[in-house]
Amino acid sequence: MLRRTLLPVKSALWSRQMSVLARSVKYTQHGEPQDVLELVESELPDPKDKQVLVKILAAPINPADINTIQGKYPVKPKFPAVGGNECVAKVLCVGEQVKDLKAGQHVIPLATGLGTWTTHAVYNEDQLMAVSDKVGVAEAATVTVNPCTAYRMLKDFVKLSPGDTVIQNGANSAVGQAVHQLCRAWGINSIGIVRDRPEIADLKQMLQCLGATAVLTEAEIRTSDIFKSGKMKKPRLAFNCVGGKSATEVSRHLDHGGVLVTYGGMSREPVTVATGPLIFKDIAFRGFWMTRWSKENYSSPERSKMFKEIFDLMEQGKFVAPTHEMVPLKNFKDAAAAALNFKGFTGKKYILDMSE
Amino acid sequence: MLRRTLLPVKSALWSRQMSVLARSVKYTQHGEPQDVLELVESELPDPKDKQVLVKILAAPINPADINTIQGKYPVKPKFPAVGGNECVAKVLCVGEQVKDLKAGQHVIPLATGLGTWTTHAVYNEDQLMAVSDKVGVAEAATVTVNPCTAYRMLKDFVKLSPGDTVIQNGANSAVGQAVHQLCRAWGINSIGIVRDRPEIADLKQMLQCLGATAVLTEAEIRTSDIFKSGKMKKPRLAFNCVGGKSATEVSRHLDHGGVLVTYGGMSREPVTVATGPLIFKDIAFRGFWMTRWSKENYSSPERSKMFKEIFDLMEQGKFVAPTHEMVPLKNFKDAAAAALNFKGFTGKKYILDMSE
Repeated sequence: MLRRTLLPVKSALWSRQMSVLARSVKYTQHGEPQDVLELVESELPDPKDKQVLVKILAAPINPADINTIQGKYPVKPKFPAVGGNECVAKVLCVGEQVKDLKAGQHVIPLATGLGTWTTHAVYNEDQLMAVSDKVGVAEAATVTVNPCTAYRMLKDFVKLSPGDTVIQNGANSAVGQAVHQLCRAWGINSIGIVRDRPEIADLKQMLQCLGATAVLTEAEIRTSDIFKSGKMKKPRLAFNCVGGKSATEVSRHLDHGGVLVTYGGMSREPVTVATGPLIFKDIAFRGFWMTRWSKENYSSPERSKMFKEIFDLMEQGKFVAPTHEMVPLKNFKDAAAAALNFKGFTGKKYILDMSE
Repeated sequence: MLRRTLLPVKSALWSRQMSVLARSVKYTQHGEPQDVLELVESELPDPKDKQVLVKILAAPINPADINTIQGKYPVKPKFPAVGGNECVAKVLCVGEQVKDLKAGQHVIPLATGLGTWTTHAVYNEDQLMAVSDKVGVAEAATVTVNPCTAYRMLKDFVKLSPGDTVIQNGANSAVGQAVHQLCRAWGINSIGIVRDRPEIADLKQMLQCLGATAVLTEAEIRTSDIFKSGKMKKPRLAFNCVGGKSATEVSRHLDHGGVLVTYGGMSREPVTVATGPLIFKDIAFRGFWMTRWSKENYSSPERSKMFKEIFDLMEQGKFVAPTHEMVPLKNFKDAAAAALNFKGFTGKKYILDMSE
């Protein structure tokens, strides 16, 4: 909601004279989202120096955002805090020292913890990255967490070549969907494991549509000979977001020297690692946290390369956002409550739509 | 037992005319050592070409040797098989194409599965490495498995500098004793965890004598503030030969980015890996198997460097064999039965003494 009607930016001087009333989803203490979140209006200062005033177009609700609000995440916000870490936004106007961004451009956050569940925000130029408006709003809004997690896990643990195989549980998670799509783009076999459910046939078809080479239920993979016929290489890389028996089962299919990368633990059960595979098969059990990688590689060429590659695929229509629902900002409480209510990643991602 | 009295080797011609009756601990099927092992006499052929006839001086009984006899080890021998993988031997005579070994030299096996529980053997030159006779018989006989495991685990997972810390459970195991001694030589703090027992004070003193910076029982480490006072760096490397709760406890003390290397599983319980440390602390769970490393690095400069470094320490008296007992060959059955009977590495290593 702009106090003045937003007109095309005519001059930098004019752009600094705008004043904007932002509506933000804020919290001042940890707790359940429905208890502690509230929609607060506040006037934003004009962007100065290297600051950028943006209008948020869309911002997803990620499980980690909810855990952060609950106080269960290793990243602790300063109160009062605005929820959310991801978004795609449109630049409204920029401070006089801003060099590389201009009004009208789409941007995504390079930094985490910016507080993106808000209609407008003032960020610093170095916290943002321009993105082509040919990239869909849902895709751009959700790129920095899940697709980047999938990309890094495929790149940083085992050197894969076309024809190699990866296997993952929770294959219908947002990261799982990204893994399938990147594997398809890179010629890598990707085997998805999902829990059985009434609508299993639809789910399998959906994931195969995204590029999964095969999708099996946890019961099916236990008796499958998919890696025994010799038609498909045994996986050298596995991804786990479930834990417990599911993780053990996935690791059992790894080839010698393989790596199981854990990026989530939806079952709340630990990963159990038998001594034999550790020693005699040289299986490694690692973990991955996108937030740390992004901090450690904030301005790295490797990070720019990753974004370019993913955005190129998105522009070509070869990489779509995970299953999602756009939700009006006013429904933020229901969406936040529902975001953690899906059991074992059967649900969709909620994306707050700020365009209303 | 030589058919002819062994005289100093005068000529290569003469040396090839010797004939030797070897007594070997053999088995023709898998089973418990006391059931399937027997002492068998056989005449050895003269060493030809690149062959070397050796008299074994001493050969240890390692847990993996027993597991191999039981059929529980990934390495399967061809029957009839001679037990044992390690030894120190004296060269009696050599084939005409042998270049680098000569009668009188001490040698150790470079290859595994040679069958070392025998009074004499004919090996190929490339299966052996000369070792100075200044290195003690017990040290040379036990160097290729435990000290090399300790060396590689300290070198190959985390880059350590003087002042860094490692922590290990089963700290009184043969590998554990080697870890303490290498850490002392390299200026690295080494914290040993052992099970409580009546003679705990003696055990602590013994391990501190070998170089342990501190030795704690499993109960003591749970409440210790050893890494909290700031006097000692948190460990970036941990070794586990126990599994179960002991492994979890050891991994809990690792610093961010630390690695837990499993090389044994005496409790027969798996390693349990919580999702949080994997993701947020970037703790990695790896395994190490000396047999594989030795095969993959058979003639590597890295392997020669390792042996040279360890032998230098042994010659200087800075590295001693693990707690052991020399056992006459005729008592092989009792020793083999006892070798796996120690509970959780409280026992000593039995070394067959072939000198009688």
